[in-house]
Amino acid sequence: MEYLVMLPGPTNVPGRVMNAMLSPIINHRSDDFRALYRTVVDKTQRVFQTSNDIVVLTASGTGAVEASVVNLVKKGDKVVIPVNGEFGGRLADLIDSCGGNSIRINSKFGDNPPLEQIEGAFESNKDIKALYAVYNETSTGTTLRYLEKLGELCSKYGSLFIVDAVSILGGDELPVDKWGIDVCMTASQKALAAPPGVAPISVSARAKKQMIENPPPTQYFNLKRYFKYFGDSGETPFTPALPLMFAYREALEMVLEEGLDKRVERHRRCANAFYTGLNELGFTPFAHPEARSNVVIAFNYIPGIEDKTFRKILGEHFRVLIAGGFGELKGKVFRIGSMGEVDRYHVIRTLSAIASTLKIMGIQTKAEAIPVAMKALNV
Amino acid sequence: MEYLVMLPGPTNVPGRVMNAMLSPIINHRSDDFRALYRTVVDKTQRVFQTSNDIVVLTASGTGAVEASVVNLVKKGDKVVIPVNGEFGGRLADLIDSCGGNSIRINSKFGDNPPLEQIEGAFESNKDIKALYAVYNETSTGTTLRYLEKLGELCSKYGSLFIVDAVSILGGDELPVDKWGIDVCMTASQKALAAPPGVAPISVSARAKKQMIENPPPTQYFNLKRYFKYFGDSGETPFTPALPLMFAYREALEMVLEEGLDKRVERHRRCANAFYTGLNELGFTPFAHPEARSNVVIAFNYIPGIEDKTFRKILGEHFRVLIAGGFGELKGKVFRIGSMGEVDRYHVIRTLSAIASTLKIMGIQTKAEAIPVAMKALNV
Repeated sequence: MEYLVMLPGPTNVPGRVMNAMLSPIINHRSDDFRALYRTVVDKTQRVFQTSNDIVVLTASGTGAVEASVVNLVKKGDKVVIPVNGEFGGRLADLIDSCGGNSIRINSKFGDNPPLEQIEGAFESNKDIKALYAVYNETSTGTTLRYLEKLGELCSKYGSLFIVDAVSILGGDELPVDKWGIDVCMTASQKALAAPPGVAPISVSARAKKQMIENPPPTQYFNLKRYFKYFGDSGETPFTPALPLMFAYREALEMVLEEGLDKRVERHRRCANAFYTGLNELGFTPFAHPEARSNVVIAFNYIPGIEDKTFRKILGEHFRVLIAGGFGELKGKVFRIGSMGEVDRYHVIRTLSAIASTLKIMGIQTKAEAIPVAMKALNV
Repeated sequence: MEYLVMLPGPTNVPGRVMNAMLSPIINHRSDDFRALYRTVVDKTQRVFQTSNDIVVLTASGTGAVEASVVNLVKKGDKVVIPVNGEFGGRLADLIDSCGGNSIRINSKFGDNPPLEQIEGAFESNKDIKALYAVYNETSTGTTLRYLEKLGELCSKYGSLFIVDAVSILGGDELPVDKWGIDVCMTASQKALAAPPGVAPISVSARAKKQMIENPPPTQYFNLKRYFKYFGDSGETPFTPALPLMFAYREALEMVLEEGLDKRVERHRRCANAFYTGLNELGFTPFAHPEARSNVVIAFNYIPGIEDKTFRKILGEHFRVLIAGGFGELKGKVFRIGSMGEVDRYHVIRTLSAIASTLKIMGIQTKAEAIPVAMKALNV
């Protein structure tokens, strides 16, 4: 029996999108592919709200994030990066291992690093090459609510602005051009509700110029090659994962049919229902209220609830998949991916399964999650 | 209408394999995924005829080839590489751009570099770290028929033996362990007849040791991370392309059901039918007879046949896709991928379409291709 996939990616994929994978195989060096890829690029631009260049990699989100680093961060480059979770830390480590010099603005996990400290880093270092920001920290369920202000900082200090939007793009506000984002990357299997395996990146003219002037020694994530192939022939340099490209196109089409505003509002409403419903069940949210994510909902375990047992019951008896904690939060929190296709049905079924699981585990709760969530959902 | 995909990858994908992509989405951090991946690894080992470690990347074949370089070739390492086509040249360039020192043994495209010259390179350089070989040169339709002997050379001179088997594994003989291959990589969409997007690699114990001792600074193709994740939890470090993993498993299952020997024999038979049939139509093969590939069939154009027109008629009127030339062979040769699912139906339909296309283009031929091919096919 199929799972209700409430993970922070991969997530539930609509049947329409799954079926698109069955499109017959085509030549990736042909008009058929050029037409497909052109549509994919156009629709990606609309979903990213950008007129920047688009590259779609055959890779996971990590691949797209790595591409942003190897194409832009060169030996000795100073890079400011807020770090409030595992993914921010990983990205900062990658920047350093690739020869960059990360200036990490840390905060407690669950909080967002203070904006003034980020500005402070620009004030005390006049040669910052780029600001990297993980918009949604999947490991903690927090979102950098001041992303637009980071763009203003970059503009003020003449720095590149690179946004890892892997777990959020399509599920919350992210007008790439309006917010001055030079490079923005995401992955197919998160808030865009496509299967995993393709990862789009947008690149501004000035970032592109730097990438072309100083490309990495490797090929697979060498964006200069992607720009050249696309410019010369409308193709990708290496064989793309065709079925995933068809699926991704269909997923983009669904995003555009719904409309970005409505989609963001739906994510906000579902997140709100999760926050109020889980609260009612006696859980406390992990994230600070001002940093709470609308796509990854992280809650602390109640003492006495063992992570593996809890999620095993949810998975085996209710066919509902949620994620545990990550890194130093392993065993301490659970995380719900409330993204992509998520709607009231998903919220209610998940909360109902959690309430029943608590009963199975002998945990006393007020168990009023459903009516409260339904109110938050306006149903 | 669907194409008959006679490209040197992607190729026709059996319905069974396509449908496997519709397997419901699962958690990639779960027993469900661990069971899937375990099966994929086991079956890959059997198809590679190896007991070495297996890593399956979400990437094209280029990604797997790059992984073999960034994990093994370090600054100043001497690497011998026979070069007789575009892909050999590209790989040698990558080795150099990643800090290695390639010793290229060149030959005319269509030939194989003389084995004695390769041994000569070992004789005159006592510190060769690795021998890289592109087993099947897709750009020219040639196969290194002395691959086993290269393994013996590596063993004699204490060098690593790395084989790019991207366009051939599953379509011709390649007993990885018997031939002493330390690292062997391929791609899903070639002779294994799965959709593009996953790329398996096998790694011997001594190559693994070197990879673990000196990993690359990047993450996505960092095989040390893959070994660690697989060892610790049976998982992959980054989100895999789940639908493609299901499809790849099904494709491996089909290979094993048929049996490797029968599969290689089928490829040989179909290739032979193409060589004799196209010859009969008046074309001359590009490759030297001793170097001819059984998976990529390259023929010279007859003067007066323009590449684009020829392939356009084949594609539009007959729905048969074949490839043109590549790099310096652009416009001079056409290439047929005779791999994966290929059987007598594919050969006969392709030859028949080519014969009819020649008639449409006003080219006189003996046009006896079909009976000759049928004889070669034993039908």
